[in-house]
Amino acid sequence: MAISSAPGKVYLFGEHAVVYGEPAIPCAIDLRARVQATARDDNRVRLTARDLSLNGFTVEFRGGHGDRPDVDVPDVLVEAAVGYVDGAIEHARELAGGTDDGLELTIESDIPLGAGLGSSAAVTVAAIDAVAREFGASPDKEVIADRAYQVESSVQSGEASRADTYCSTMGGVVRIEGSDCRRLGEPDIPFVLGYDGGAGDTGQLVAGVRSLRDRYPFAHATVEAVGELVERGETALADGDLAEVGRLMNFNHGLLAALGVSSRTLDDMVWAARDAGALGAKLTGAGGHGCIVALTDSSSVKTALEHAPSCEAAYEADLTPTGLHRE
Amino acid sequence: MAISSAPGKVYLFGEHAVVYGEPAIPCAIDLRARVQATARDDNRVRLTARDLSLNGFTVEFRGGHGDRPDVDVPDVLVEAAVGYVDGAIEHARELAGGTDDGLELTIESDIPLGAGLGSSAAVTVAAIDAVAREFGASPDKEVIADRAYQVESSVQSGEASRADTYCSTMGGVVRIEGSDCRRLGEPDIPFVLGYDGGAGDTGQLVAGVRSLRDRYPFAHATVEAVGELVERGETALADGDLAEVGRLMNFNHGLLAALGVSSRTLDDMVWAARDAGALGAKLTGAGGHGCIVALTDSSSVKTALEHAPSCEAAYEADLTPTGLHRE
Repeated sequence: MAISSAPGKVYLFGEHAVVYGEPAIPCAIDLRARVQATARDDNRVRLTARDLSLNGFTVEFRGGHGDRPDVDVPDVLVEAAVGYVDGAIEHARELAGGTDDGLELTIESDIPLGAGLGSSAAVTVAAIDAVAREFGASPDKEVIADRAYQVESSVQSGEASRADTYCSTMGGVVRIEGSDCRRLGEPDIPFVLGYDGGAGDTGQLVAGVRSLRDRYPFAHATVEAVGELVERGETALADGDLAEVGRLMNFNHGLLAALGVSSRTLDDMVWAARDAGALGAKLTGAGGHGCIVALTDSSSVKTALEHAPSCEAAYEADLTPTGLHRE
Repeated sequence: MAISSAPGKVYLFGEHAVVYGEPAIPCAIDLRARVQATARDDNRVRLTARDLSLNGFTVEFRGGHGDRPDVDVPDVLVEAAVGYVDGAIEHARELAGGTDDGLELTIESDIPLGAGLGSSAAVTVAAIDAVAREFGASPDKEVIADRAYQVESSVQSGEASRADTYCSTMGGVVRIEGSDCRRLGEPDIPFVLGYDGGAGDTGQLVAGVRSLRDRYPFAHATVEAVGELVERGETALADGDLAEVGRLMNFNHGLLAALGVSSRTLDDMVWAARDAGALGAKLTGAGGHGCIVALTDSSSVKTALEHAPSCEAAYEADLTPTGLHRE
């Protein structure tokens, strides 16, 4: 039996613009997904998922061959979860020299699904590692990060960035620019997250930004402005200037709103956090619905979010230096 | 006795950026300020203001010489109202050849004060015209617009743009770029306004944008993006493409939010209008507090605004072709 865990992430800066080659700075947070892998005697895969912010489900299918399991949860979520796990198993088998053995997989996660916190990347990273180790391999982190990116890219039809998978594998603050991924460090940054209970449609949101950027020169300039903001954010992080990081988060949120990816609930939570004293607040991830991230060490921000009409749950989630972890 | 009226305005596009020489497109709306001027036998000025979204007040002072009247309403509002009227009287006297006669002035206005709807410009334009005519002059509109701009510029310590005064004088849709002012036409555009009952601090908001623009290259780029958006908006207006106008208003609002001039109440009203089917919605004017403008011919948008927690009042206000009007 092998158990691996990997963290979720928030974007401090740069989501969406990263799709067009601009830099982005995500960082890992201490909400984690854990995957336990146990080899079976047959070649079946049995997957049990718990706490994925949806009803737990158990599915049994022949991993690695595109089977559709038959379970009573929304198709789109099962399809996504199974897609990531299926891809992870395939890559792990390859890393382990091509075994066809079956698996018992259990996934537990603190990370709300589809909320912009990189739950799928965390599950994918942890699953590749746990399965590869269960089959006797011990791939290094760079390899895991790259394989996990390939899985996301395949499930998301090429729209994935390396941000989520690299960040989840390495932990801490990372900088992504195209295929150039670097770890910047592990400063002590306290976050509060607000979650509206919903999930944005990443494909549709990415397509919306692309359409604006293709149509309007000023939308093109807006995407570039995000990239410039990220450079400034990197400096502020290096200087430990959290007030500046917060100001830049606020600005980044406005640019994302201009690009059409905010929503009434996300804006409401952002203002609740700012009005309660957060240094800065922005949506994180694809937007539409999901989470906002507020930079603050004040418990009153969490309370304010819990009282905001749009907020279903609020979490304290510090930056974590721990990426992929073998438990 | 002479009576003149002039309309308020909303910004379809370009507030704040207009301060840095970018183009802007305000348009006149059918909420008006009326000024009645009657010469007196002495050299005193008696000013009665009604319906300025504050308690009516009457003040008596020696116009044109910087006297402070003694009345029971908030200083800052009296100071502002008296400042504009005082300046208007001075310019009108000059236009009429320099008379020192006293005046009985009555101001009635439908336009909420300090809400981004150009109430001070409308009062100033109407006052210059009514007083000048009462003293026997008949200045043409270009002269009135220019004199009213000088009054605003003096009261606002040089931060005024020509947008409000030109638009209020000429009516319809106008385009402002530096000192170049043009009337674009008078298309039939239906608006609904949401008003949060507050007033932004224009000076502070303008200073905030200036500070961001000075500090960050991407904020500079954001201001330029507003200017590019305005050009596209002019084309959409010429084509009568209201859906495109709405999309551009939404984008403009996001850029203004990035520049730090939106607020919880303004964002809440913007989303209430969009969710109820408005083609587009944005804050109008300096921001902070005040009004949003929604492009829509649907009465459900007005109802939705009236039910939004942040909205104190909602108005239907079509574009009006009628600028300064002699009644």
